[in-house]
Amino acid sequence: MSVQPQQVRNYLRELQAEICFALEESDGEAQFMEDRIDTNAGGLSAPRVLENGRHIERAGVNFTHSVGAELPSAATARRPELAGRGFQAVSLSLIVHPCNPYAPTTHANFRCFVATKKGEAPVWWMGGGYDLTPYYGFDEDAVHFHRTARAACNPFDSDLYGKLKAACDDYFYLPHRQEARGIGGVFFDDFQLENWATSFAFLKAMSASFLVAYIPILERRKNTEYSEAERDFQLYRRGRYVEFNLLHDRGTKYGIQSGRRIEAVMCSMPPVVRWSYKHEPTSGSPEAKLYERYLIPRDWADLG
Amino acid sequence: MSVQPQQVRNYLRELQAEICFALEESDGEAQFMEDRIDTNAGGLSAPRVLENGRHIERAGVNFTHSVGAELPSAATARRPELAGRGFQAVSLSLIVHPCNPYAPTTHANFRCFVATKKGEAPVWWMGGGYDLTPYYGFDEDAVHFHRTARAACNPFDSDLYGKLKAACDDYFYLPHRQEARGIGGVFFDDFQLENWATSFAFLKAMSASFLVAYIPILERRKNTEYSEAERDFQLYRRGRYVEFNLLHDRGTKYGIQSGRRIEAVMCSMPPVVRWSYKHEPTSGSPEAKLYERYLIPRDWADLG
Repeated sequence: MSVQPQQVRNYLRELQAEICFALEESDGEAQFMEDRIDTNAGGLSAPRVLENGRHIERAGVNFTHSVGAELPSAATARRPELAGRGFQAVSLSLIVHPCNPYAPTTHANFRCFVATKKGEAPVWWMGGGYDLTPYYGFDEDAVHFHRTARAACNPFDSDLYGKLKAACDDYFYLPHRQEARGIGGVFFDDFQLENWATSFAFLKAMSASFLVAYIPILERRKNTEYSEAERDFQLYRRGRYVEFNLLHDRGTKYGIQSGRRIEAVMCSMPPVVRWSYKHEPTSGSPEAKLYERYLIPRDWADLG
Repeated sequence: MSVQPQQVRNYLRELQAEICFALEESDGEAQFMEDRIDTNAGGLSAPRVLENGRHIERAGVNFTHSVGAELPSAATARRPELAGRGFQAVSLSLIVHPCNPYAPTTHANFRCFVATKKGEAPVWWMGGGYDLTPYYGFDEDAVHFHRTARAACNPFDSDLYGKLKAACDDYFYLPHRQEARGIGGVFFDDFQLENWATSFAFLKAMSASFLVAYIPILERRKNTEYSEAERDFQLYRRGRYVEFNLLHDRGTKYGIQSGRRIEAVMCSMPPVVRWSYKHEPTSGSPEAKLYERYLIPRDWADLG
């Protein structure tokens, strides 16, 4: 079966609609607006953003299909053999910032990259994953999220989940804070299984499991009562998200450097954020528990 | 006159106290808290932070004196001849985020760097400057700010202000937004005049003019009436400050890489920030005027 980025485009574009529908349903009020920008050679940029919902303060679900006649040199620094090749990159990237501090933020990304040259085999890989960033931790949420990811991985390779889980813990880490971004999930990059068909099947299984992993958690937490103190802590912790995205995230860096529309890149930013100087949670508080129990890599899928 | 970083330390440490006093006076309620961490070989880190004042939402005025036996290789990539030298770096770095959206944010930094080696002449330079970031622009503020900077430069060299003003416009620019951070000011780095004494005199003149440049503007604007709409715009525009500091600012990068206490580095962050997707100011509004008139480099000192 040949390498067909168009397949991935069709699949991810449909998944975008499905995810947006599920999020709208969970929100119950707000709707996504879509921009649609047809780009060079059949490419498409279609960011969808929902703001100021009843339960979702902001969600961005961005589809991008880039088509280029020649790879930019920045993209081939680590792979000089690709210089000058034509390429296609298809990506669905999303982030959900709920209103309720008890409902965690989530991020997911699914993508493929294909570089072609006449008379030579295409070079390609897939990438993506999803991860969860709670403000208040719950074991049952972390366990459900990770078990869902594991269940999606297991049919392909029983070692896979462990590897992608470790890669996720590794990637979503703030060295300047010496802190995990959240409770992790799965992350894969430069990824191939036996062949294109199996890899695409894996991308589909993984991405299809995202709603199964996240929506039940959002549903469970979105109506939790909270006071200004919990809201403040949520806004404070969102600062870490901003720091990660602007200081470390390769997706944000790539988005900015590749000259994508800046608003589409920045729609991952939380809607409202707070920074406090030397914020220290009270010992024994739920806020302290976030740091002590949840921002430490842990084998959630095997818990209990 | 020999190269004496201790002089700069004494001077900047006193200036820190003076600036904090002036800001407390202008705020009228809140006070700075100081941390004091004595470091290796006589170094000192002394961040001062004021939060939740009546007029100042957050101000950070950080003094740092670093003393090292050997320059880290990252610091000498561009100057391999300095590798292995002992060094001292003295810096006063400050930021003021007022409460009132009509009062601009300001940032200033004054510093010197000295690398020594037995039997060889010390290598040294100075750096610093100050700049202004309004949310609502006023010609009189921009003119006063720039004329104050020019008046501090002129006794040293009549070409100086123009150069440092251009360097400031150049440095405080957000390429990913194609936007200036604010109305500029002055910026200098790797800087020397004829000799140490003249350079230090310039650093003193420049840094002493900061309060003259900023306090009258804060006083003029701090009691302006405003509504939630202006506050929202202020929070939104503060997002640009965060983006600049985390994506581009060399000071923040250096602070993070050099392992300085992260809270002292991050105290430049605005206290509350908002990101909105595709925010577009209404045509003809004061918000639109910020972009059209104030976020464009302009010869403010020569205006009118």
